[in-house]
Amino acid sequence: MEIIDISWPITQNITEYKNKKYINIIQASDFKHDKVREKLITIHSHTGTHIDAPSHFLHHGKSLDQLNLNKFYGPCKVFDLSDIKEKITDKDLEKFNINENDIIILKTKNSFLHENINFTENFVYLDKSGAQYLANKKIKTFGFDYLGIERNQPEHPTHLILLENEIPIIEGLRLKDVIEDEYILCCFPILIKEADGAPARAILIAQ
Amino acid sequence: MEIIDISWPITQNITEYKNKKYINIIQASDFKHDKVREKLITIHSHTGTHIDAPSHFLHHGKSLDQLNLNKFYGPCKVFDLSDIKEKITDKDLEKFNINENDIIILKTKNSFLHENINFTENFVYLDKSGAQYLANKKIKTFGFDYLGIERNQPEHPTHLILLENEIPIIEGLRLKDVIEDEYILCCFPILIKEADGAPARAILIAQ
Repeated sequence: MEIIDISWPITQNITEYKNKKYINIIQASDFKHDKVREKLITIHSHTGTHIDAPSHFLHHGKSLDQLNLNKFYGPCKVFDLSDIKEKITDKDLEKFNINENDIIILKTKNSFLHENINFTENFVYLDKSGAQYLANKKIKTFGFDYLGIERNQPEHPTHLILLENEIPIIEGLRLKDVIEDEYILCCFPILIKEADGAPARAILIAQ
Repeated sequence: MEIIDISWPITQNITEYKNKKYINIIQASDFKHDKVREKLITIHSHTGTHIDAPSHFLHHGKSLDQLNLNKFYGPCKVFDLSDIKEKITDKDLEKFNINENDIIILKTKNSFLHENINFTENFVYLDKSGAQYLANKKIKTFGFDYLGIERNQPEHPTHLILLENEIPIIEGLRLKDVIEDEYILCCFPILIKEADGAPARAILIAQ
């Protein structure tokens, strides 16, 4: 069994969506004096590797803690689309074996942007036709390798299509060294009540 | 497969160690105006269900992100010690089947305190003799059902014994409804660089 970390490290300099600056990590004790290390962390519900709940965009959408836990654990398929330059459409997904209740993770060229601290506006995104294709397939969970999934489509159709179908969206995955294959995904968000989104540690288990 | 959540929900009113008040959860957007829900969360590295790294107490101790990921995932044993009123000693542990590389979780009567928002000073704790017993057995990871594991032992011997042996300590588990048995533990902390501790979602998988 190999445990593969696909999480975005949280640091004071982490890339944030559209270069906002929410993160703040401070030492909450002085080791020399207190003989203990502690931190106080201020973090946005959509910083780093995190999961979007339906309530992020939907008035009556479920929060993360209302979703079935099996959305965050189980067999998953990683597909490599890193040859695509602009957006992922339904046509790009048709060649893959995608079935009901699959956890689908897409690796794109975004995975090679991660050394760039500045937010990249023109990241590869999931076109609304791609989101509709995945929703029609009734997938369980969707994972992607940047801090957003739809760039600047007006009205956020990609998010809305997925979230209206109760497909949570894992954003901020780091897949540079991950090859297209089947794994076990383990990606539980921290348990914030009524969370519209929450940080999660994302792990693939290869067997 | 049954997925059992053993995490302490994070809310504005969460019980914190010795009634400190670090948590602050605020809405970072106005849904009516912005059409999106977001939160800004300030959290201590040892709030709620979290993991202590060796660097929490040891000058040259490893941080959480330096530990092998298999510390946070794998077969684990939950032992029920909820008949104990004060502290868990080496003698209390001798009756259990504990082996090298086990993940050991102890359920105590602390698990029935969780409805109490105030911090309970006289929680059941792991006596230093119990910690030494587990260290001698070379267990992999230790989990416990309160926000501390040693109450007020001077110099924190329980923590030191475990952390010097690179046994991370999962604190703040909620085990009220968990029966003594073997499970798969899945408890990865969020990936904060150089973390002395970090929030984690703790999950048991029953098979």
